[in-house]
This record gives sequence, structure tokens and C-alpha cells, in this order.
Amino acid sequence: MPRSSRCRPVLYDLMLDYPLREAKALRPTLCIATARALGGSLEAVVPTACVLELYHNAFLIHDDVEDDSDRRRGGATLHRRFGVPVAMNVGDAMLAVALGPLLDNLRLVGLGKALRILYTVSRMARQSAEGQALELAWCRERRWELSELDYFRMVRKKTSQYTFVAPVEMGAVLGGAEPDVLPLLRRFAGALGAAFQIQDDVLSLTARKPEYGKDALGDLWEGKHTLIVLHMLGKATPKERALAMAALARHRPASLGQGEARARRLLLRLESEHGITGAARREIEGALFPRAASERTQADVDLLLSLITKHGSIEYARDVAARYAQRATRSLHSLSGHLRASVHRDVLAALSIFVVERQH
Amino acid sequence: MPRSSRCRPVLYDLMLDYPLREAKALRPTLCIATARALGGSLEAVVPTACVLELYHNAFLIHDDVEDDSDRRRGGATLHRRFGVPVAMNVGDAMLAVALGPLLDNLRLVGLGKALRILYTVSRMARQSAEGQALELAWCRERRWELSELDYFRMVRKKTSQYTFVAPVEMGAVLGGAEPDVLPLLRRFAGALGAAFQIQDDVLSLTARKPEYGKDALGDLWEGKHTLIVLHMLGKATPKERALAMAALARHRPASLGQGEARARRLLLRLESEHGITGAARREIEGALFPRAASERTQADVDLLLSLITKHGSIEYARDVAARYAQRATRSLHSLSGHLRASVHRDVLAALSIFVVERQH
Repeated sequence: MPRSSRCRPVLYDLMLDYPLREAKALRPTLCIATARALGGSLEAVVPTACVLELYHNAFLIHDDVEDDSDRRRGGATLHRRFGVPVAMNVGDAMLAVALGPLLDNLRLVGLGKALRILYTVSRMARQSAEGQALELAWCRERRWELSELDYFRMVRKKTSQYTFVAPVEMGAVLGGAEPDVLPLLRRFAGALGAAFQIQDDVLSLTARKPEYGKDALGDLWEGKHTLIVLHMLGKATPKERALAMAALARHRPASLGQGEARARRLLLRLESEHGITGAARREIEGALFPRAASERTQADVDLLLSLITKHGSIEYARDVAARYAQRATRSLHSLSGHLRASVHRDVLAALSIFVVERQH
Repeated sequence: MPRSSRCRPVLYDLMLDYPLREAKALRPTLCIATARALGGSLEAVVPTACVLELYHNAFLIHDDVEDDSDRRRGGATLHRRFGVPVAMNVGDAMLAVALGPLLDNLRLVGLGKALRILYTVSRMARQSAEGQALELAWCRERRWELSELDYFRMVRKKTSQYTFVAPVEMGAVLGGAEPDVLPLLRRFAGALGAAFQIQDDVLSLTARKPEYGKDALGDLWEGKHTLIVLHMLGKATPKERALAMAALARHRPASLGQGEARARRLLLRLESEHGITGAARREIEGALFPRAASERTQADVDLLLSLITKHGSIEYARDVAARYAQRATRSLHSLSGHLRASVHRDVLAALSIFVVERQH
């Protein structure tokens, strides 16, 4: 496309930035393994698997802007490198580009399968936005009166559908699965998704750098609605609960960017060189760090962690994750008549163990 | 959908926020008028027209985040009301939801037309992202060595395709246009798009509040690549050009948000109440407004405007816009054998005049 060539360095090259960094490629792996284990060809499934990775990376770019994150997959986030407008436009463009292979599927795999894939993508993108909206609303409204059912409903939309159920369903369609196989595959993928998310919650509190790659205790600093925190709130005494709710009600602290580090140095210099102390100094500090008073502190995080430890909430979450992983393994066994004994079926079996044993 | 009901207040209601504010509804109007003038039914075209408005409003939400705008269509922007994460997720969700009616088109208008609409949407979204990427790259690289051809190429991608050509094409498909009519309709829509964008450039420098609704001289403050500025740079003497380039090289100033207004008050109070002046005050000011020195000033904008006036660049742009509007009118005449004499054809004719006579 000669007309688009001038857009390569400013758009298309940037779309490849995240996808070319090292990552698990969980969604395309699930899609391809499912299709191949059902007897489908690699050629038929690869474009759809790429679309899944494209969607995922577009959402990562947008997530990084939303959270104003510094790093992703071992490098600076896209908006840190090129600014918010470029990053948002690259994400939007990836969502637009993803339609291409989905329409090309009409020629590649035929009308029926191509349309079913399109419907699945549409449902997946909606569910993912719904799950994200639920979690954001809980955060904004500081809602913690939530049951485990609420948690699993949110996880199903936010994580399971988009990362597990939709990729497996697409693989099933392209692998030519019989209609009666689909509910079993959905069951397998849903259990895998729940186990994966709970292990994510566990890792955030237990993993050690550097193999983990995210901030230690990140979920507590961010005030995320994890199974662990919900379990702790359910087991806590009224007094503990009140303390925990106060710690959770505060804001997530803004990241200490270059601007803030400069501002801290300025405060020190104002005191030592210009003798500015007392009320004036407090006023300046308040202006430079306007939210500091209502921000979560190390003491808040320590308190939450001690209550979580006291009530065995991490062990509880580990047990629940293990049960879901076992359910996934059992679902896979019930599919043995439909999935060919192959490296592809072995990948699906290995994933049922990986989701709860992974350290990253 | 009972399962989605809990998502209504936190997601689906927010999708309706921008669409329910007063606006021109240019894209659905073009789509419906074209389809109806060709003899198509209203029922067949309405869902697709809605998708165009949905896409447009999703991009507006994302644009407002990118530009950190305060107001849109007479109210606060979505991210000002609900925060950046909620606004970005609502925009992404709107892009996902838009797929629904496009797939429902299969039943409503048949396979052939539904697929052609999908291909057009895919191309439209890509072209729009490409146009946006080109303009962002020019801004980042401070590129001003641009020809009118570069400008029109960017406008075709960023404005014409997405606001005019794609809506008209979709209307033509749904109205059952003969293949030989499409190139004529595209010519009409492309001319309309060029006239519309140039009038946008003109209005930014000439319109008076309140009927305009955007900031006066906004394009000059933002350093936009308009036909007017490119014409002025082409006509300027070497000395004028050097001055203009220096003014254009500076940053767009950040908007004076609540935080900045508070900081200004603090500076005044530090001086009057605490007697902080001189080097200490300058240090504090520098920390509170780190980019002020490299920001575009009123003097820069005045200089650019005086050069634009001297070289008759606004009149030049008005002439070019009028020529494109006439070209649109001529294209419409050449279509008279295909479009029915109707209120719908009259709307298309009126638009050819509206695009250059509008004041908002």
C-alpha cells in the first residue's frame, strides 16, 4: 500500500511495539491449541489468533494511559515514549486494523465460521468493557460490601471471557467443533480464567522481583477488589474491618514522576538556602502534592497485609484457585473423546497447571 | 439483558452522554439522505447511521482525553466528569458495541450489503487513525515544510473519509446504488469534506463567541497545520518566516486548570503574607509551571495573526473552500439522473452550501 507508506513510521511501526516485547501470548496460544487439538489447520486459525493478540495489546496501551503506568513488558510504556495522543491513537488504530483479518476470514474459512468469529469478538469486547466498568465503579464509589459472587461475576467479564472463553471458542469454531463440545470447552476456559485471576491476586501479594515484573503489593497500593481482600473483610472483627475500610478508602498515591522528584529537591533547597519553613513551607508542599493527605500510606498497606495474614486469606485464595484449576483439568478429561492426543492437547493440559503454578 | 443491567449506570448510560448533547449529526444525516435519495428505506439505513454517530462520539471521548479538553457540546467533557479511566473505557465499549448493529445488518439488509458496510467501516477507521497519526507526527516533529498536497492528503484521511466519504458510501450501498454511481458520490463527498475542513480552519480565526462554541484562535494557540498557516508561510518574507517558525516551534500552553489557578493564588499569598520574593519565588514558580518558558504566548499568536492578515491567507482559504463547495454542487448535479427529486436530495444540496456558510 504505497499511500499508507508515509504512515508506517508514525503508526504501523508503533502498533508492533508492545507485540514484539517478550510476553506469554496466552490468548493466541489457547486459540491455536484448541483449533489444532480439534483437527483444524494452522493456516485457518493464525489470523484470528493474531487478532486476539492485537486486541489485547490495544487494551494494554489504553490501560497504561488510564493508570499512567511507567513500564510494560520490560520497557517504557508507549505514552511515556510518544505522549498520550499518539498512544491512544495507536490503540484505536489497532482495534480498527483488527477488523481486516476478521473480514478476510470470509475467504479463508467460509461465511459461517467467519461470522461466528465476528459475533464472538463483538461479545468479548463488550464483556471486557463491562467488567472494566464494574471494577472502576467499585473503586470510584469505594464499594466493599461485595460478595464472592460479585467478585466472580466481575472476573468472568473482565478476565475469563476475554482471555480464556473467547479465545477457546474461536479456536473451537475454526477447529470445526461439534455443537455439543462448545459448552464443555466454555466450562474448561471459564475455570481456567477464574484460577488465573485468583493466582494473579495471590502473586501481587507474594511474588518477589525480578521474575514477577510488577510492583510488589501493587494490588494493595491500588486498592484492587481481590478475592483475598474480600475474604479478609468477611473474616475481620468489626474493629479490624473499620481500620481496613479506612485504609482502603484512601486514594492510590500518584507515581513519583520526574516532576515530583524535582519538587522534593526544591522543598529541601527552599529550607536550606532560603530559610523557608513553617506555614509557608506547608503551603508550598500542599500545592506541589495536593492529594498527599488523602493518599494511601505504607502504614495502610502494612495494616491490610497483617489482617490478610492473620485471617489466612492468601491460603484461602490459593485453595480456591487450586479447585478451579482442578475443575479445568476435569473438564479437559471430559473432552478427551473430542480432542486428539497431540502436543496441542498437552498444551491445554499444561495450561491448567501453569495458571496456578506460574510466578509471573 | 438482565446480566448487563448492573452495567447500565456505569457503562451504557455514559455511552449516551455525548450523543444526547446538541450536535449537528452530520454523519448520520449524510448517510440517511444519500440512501433515501437513491430510493432506500429508512428502516434499512438507521442502524448503520447510528453506528456512524457511535463511532464519532467514541472518538470524541478519546480526543478529549488526548487534548485534556474541559468542555464539549456545552458541558464538561466525560473525563472531567468521571475521570480518565472511565472515559477511555466508555469510548472503547462504544467501539465494541458498534459491531452489534453491523452484524445485525446481515438479517436486515442481506449478506452482500452488510459485508460492504463492514469493509467500509474497517477502511474508515483505519484512514481516520492514519490521518490523526500524520498530524500528530507533524506536531511532534514541528514539521512545517509541507505542501498543500500534504495538507489535502491529511484532510482526506482525517476528515473527508470518516465524516463524508464513508457515510455517503454506506448510504449508497444501503440505497442500492448502481456501481457507476459510487465514484460520482465519492467525488461529491470528498469535495464536501475539503470545503468543510478549510471552513473549520477559517472559523477558528474569525468566529465570535458564543455561537462558535470553541476557543477563539484555538488553531493558532494549538499550532495546528491549517491551510491558512501553510499559505502564510509560503508567502512570508525570509525574515517573517523565521519569526513565524519560532512562534510555531513553542509548545501549546497547558490549560489553566483548577490546580493551576490555586497555584497562582498561592504565589500571591506567599509574597504578601510570607514575604517570599526574588530567587526563592522564581524557583517555586518554575516548579509550579515547569513548561512556562517554552510555551506559546499571546505575542506569538498576535504575530502569526498579523502575518496571516498581511498575506491575505484567510481570504485565500475562503476562496479554496468556496471552489470545493462549488465542485460538490457540480458533482451533485451530475448525479441528478440517479438521485430522486426529494427532501433528501435537497438536504445534500443544502449541505454543499452549509459547509462553507456555517458559523459553528
